[in-house]
Amino acid sequence: MNCLVNGAAGESLSLHDRGLHYGDGLFETIAVVNGEMPLWARHMDRLQRDARRLGMSPPEASLLRDEADRLCAGARRAVLKIILTRGAGRGYRFSPAIPPTRILYRYPWHDYPSRHAEHGVRARVCELRLGRNPRLAGIKHLNRLEQVLARSEWEDEHIAEGLLLDELGHVVEGTQSNLFVVRDGRLFTPALSYCGVAGVMRGLIMDEARRLDISCEEVTLRLGDVLEADEVFFCNSLIGIWPVRALGEVRYPPGKITPRLSRQVRRLLQGEAVLS
Amino acid sequence: MNCLVNGAAGESLSLHDRGLHYGDGLFETIAVVNGEMPLWARHMDRLQRDARRLGMSPPEASLLRDEADRLCAGARRAVLKIILTRGAGRGYRFSPAIPPTRILYRYPWHDYPSRHAEHGVRARVCELRLGRNPRLAGIKHLNRLEQVLARSEWEDEHIAEGLLLDELGHVVEGTQSNLFVVRDGRLFTPALSYCGVAGVMRGLIMDEARRLDISCEEVTLRLGDVLEADEVFFCNSLIGIWPVRALGEVRYPPGKITPRLSRQVRRLLQGEAVLS
Repeated sequence: MNCLVNGAAGESLSLHDRGLHYGDGLFETIAVVNGEMPLWARHMDRLQRDARRLGMSPPEASLLRDEADRLCAGARRAVLKIILTRGAGRGYRFSPAIPPTRILYRYPWHDYPSRHAEHGVRARVCELRLGRNPRLAGIKHLNRLEQVLARSEWEDEHIAEGLLLDELGHVVEGTQSNLFVVRDGRLFTPALSYCGVAGVMRGLIMDEARRLDISCEEVTLRLGDVLEADEVFFCNSLIGIWPVRALGEVRYPPGKITPRLSRQVRRLLQGEAVLS
Repeated sequence: MNCLVNGAAGESLSLHDRGLHYGDGLFETIAVVNGEMPLWARHMDRLQRDARRLGMSPPEASLLRDEADRLCAGARRAVLKIILTRGAGRGYRFSPAIPPTRILYRYPWHDYPSRHAEHGVRARVCELRLGRNPRLAGIKHLNRLEQVLARSEWEDEHIAEGLLLDELGHVVEGTQSNLFVVRDGRLFTPALSYCGVAGVMRGLIMDEARRLDISCEEVTLRLGDVLEADEVFFCNSLIGIWPVRALGEVRYPPGKITPRLSRQVRRLLQGEAVLS
């Protein structure tokens, strides 16, 4: 059993679900380590917050937790994906009375090369620019055509991630990750007021930086700020931290802040510590 | 039988379809009148054009036509919806080798009040502003959260449509329709270079205007241009033309251009003439 739809094992969804028709829903992608989900509470916080912003009624976290445990019990390493849609119904207008659809997937762990985390990755700047909409900014919703098109810009297996700017040229994130830069020992990450996904790992890193007394600010970044940074890294809740070795033609020598954060994050993701 | 999935009667879709995960696909909503689809060729042209822009391989129009006929044979009045997704597959990156998923739905005709077309509608200006992305502009894709949120702004049954502006304040379209305005006997419609859906009915109206020797231009419109217009109307391939009687507090007396176009469009939609 690899999928649960509203609590029942299954492999299919109603053709009338609004998730299909309009991308009217949300998702979470959660690391499972030794049957545990170290960042579960953060994922649930984000899901609840995003659901409220879209006017959806999310299921109780305890219900999702029961189903996640049924699906992932005993998994040494796996990925749990949760999709929450606004349920079935036709037309853009929706009835708040319709119960949402919840779908849980258990996937095998994605074995990214360990050198990505240890020695860093090569990245490129995507040509596609993200549209800006503060109403959707930060939300991990199902409208992901921009990411699909951005990821189709390159085939080179040596390039691990693409950097996305918005229509005004502000730096936002990677196609599947958030971005941090280090300058003069201080950490900066794009404020996601107009677009982008406010990742769970991004939030964790901001909290960890605070604990480690590393200054961390959400700011407006331009491409030049990234190219001139001392250190640059991507992050998400599955990959942890990927230091950037090269962005296009620009190379970054190994830094000091990134490895500190990276070690801490790896410990958390590997279940050596559990942070709620 | 009301739905066909890749040619087979069904009511469900694979949980792994990219239409659900990313809104990675397109749709068409087609009027069926006396078993005919007067605007079929235009819908197929748009579907092919949009699919190419997303890097998808659309099925042959003749295959879709066969399936549409199986589903809608003998329908006096119905709505045919076609969803075309990029098929199943995980991750933003897609393989061009995976066959797309095609889903056809037959819905009952939506009986909008006939007074909407005859006497016009009340409309409002939506607060939500559309994000701008030239890569997605014009495409009838499945990323429709903006429309869902915009349509949730009002409950008043007397308001039939909401006008959408983009982030820069440019007028784009209605939540489920395109927009035209008349000024000094000339027709204008927003150029959809940055957002919006290039509707089949919009294209038909532009062609009909040309036939009737009415000047028609695609331009950048601001809200003031709409408020000060002589005539304003919404259109789509199901409703035909809805003249706007009132937009917020602004009222528009009945005009001359709108009824001329409206009569012509109604003839086409009612199957009294067939335009390919």
